[in-house]
Amino acid sequence: MRLFTQTIAAVIVASSPYVVHAGTVEDIAARNETFKAAFNSGDAAGVAAHYTEDATVLAPDAPLLEGREAIQGIWQAYIDAGVKELTLTTVTLEDMGASANEIGAFTLMAPDGNGGMVQAGGKYVIVWKTDASGVWHLHWDIWNSTP
Amino acid sequence: MRLFTQTIAAVIVASSPYVVHAGTVEDIAARNETFKAAFNSGDAAGVAAHYTEDATVLAPDAPLLEGREAIQGIWQAYIDAGVKELTLTTVTLEDMGASANEIGAFTLMAPDGNGGMVQAGGKYVIVWKTDASGVWHLHWDIWNSTP
Repeated sequence: MRLFTQTIAAVIVASSPYVVHAGTVEDIAARNETFKAAFNSGDAAGVAAHYTEDATVLAPDAPLLEGREAIQGIWQAYIDAGVKELTLTTVTLEDMGASANEIGAFTLMAPDGNGGMVQAGGKYVIVWKTDASGVWHLHWDIWNSTP
Repeated sequence: MRLFTQTIAAVIVASSPYVVHAGTVEDIAARNETFKAAFNSGDAAGVAAHYTEDATVLAPDAPLLEGREAIQGIWQAYIDAGVKELTLTTVTLEDMGASANEIGAFTLMAPDGNGGMVQAGGKYVIVWKTDASGVWHLHWDIWNSTP
């Protein structure tokens, strides 16, 4: 039965690049939840821990950033600038097996420069990868603003 | 020999999500060249034809756009606004088989509002997919500015 299952799995993988893994949607949703919770509690290291070691972040008006240290730095900068109440909503998730591609929308509250806060938002693409233990990490992360 | 080759192929696919296809790098480079040439000749329909029918474009300061008609519209708007001399440079390309993920950098010339032109640039992530004939099309396309 084990060999049979392996064979079937190989055939499925060979016939389609889109391998549906039970739990991928839920697992990535859970990772987005803890990412958001880390940011909203001001924990830039906790945010950075959601990325792969060699992740790339492509943030608006910033150079391309590689690696967790640089990534922690940009999230710390947003926290220090007073950005709060990040929300993340998945629009589309395509499961490619050991990677998954997500389109999402975000909102956040940012200082308006006059002592108040203003809501801003945008959209993002994340390329997720699983590590050796099957835990999903952001590998590429790019976003921009939506009017 | 044919069965052996198929078996080996199945094992390779089953053991790694990163299927290397001969020609993918060159094929996508060629598609980026014709994309750029279409834009630089003012041919928004030619640009749009490089996308999948149900592609998504996530442009800065714009809502999420789906489908070739909407995508042609935004490229026509950039052409009408006087944007010229688009360049595209691939930074990283990860081949996933029937899809490929690209990080790249772009430059362009845009009107400066005073009768002159100014260079601007940024970075992008494209999720490419092959159609039934194996031709690569942009499926997701997101970019933002770099200072």
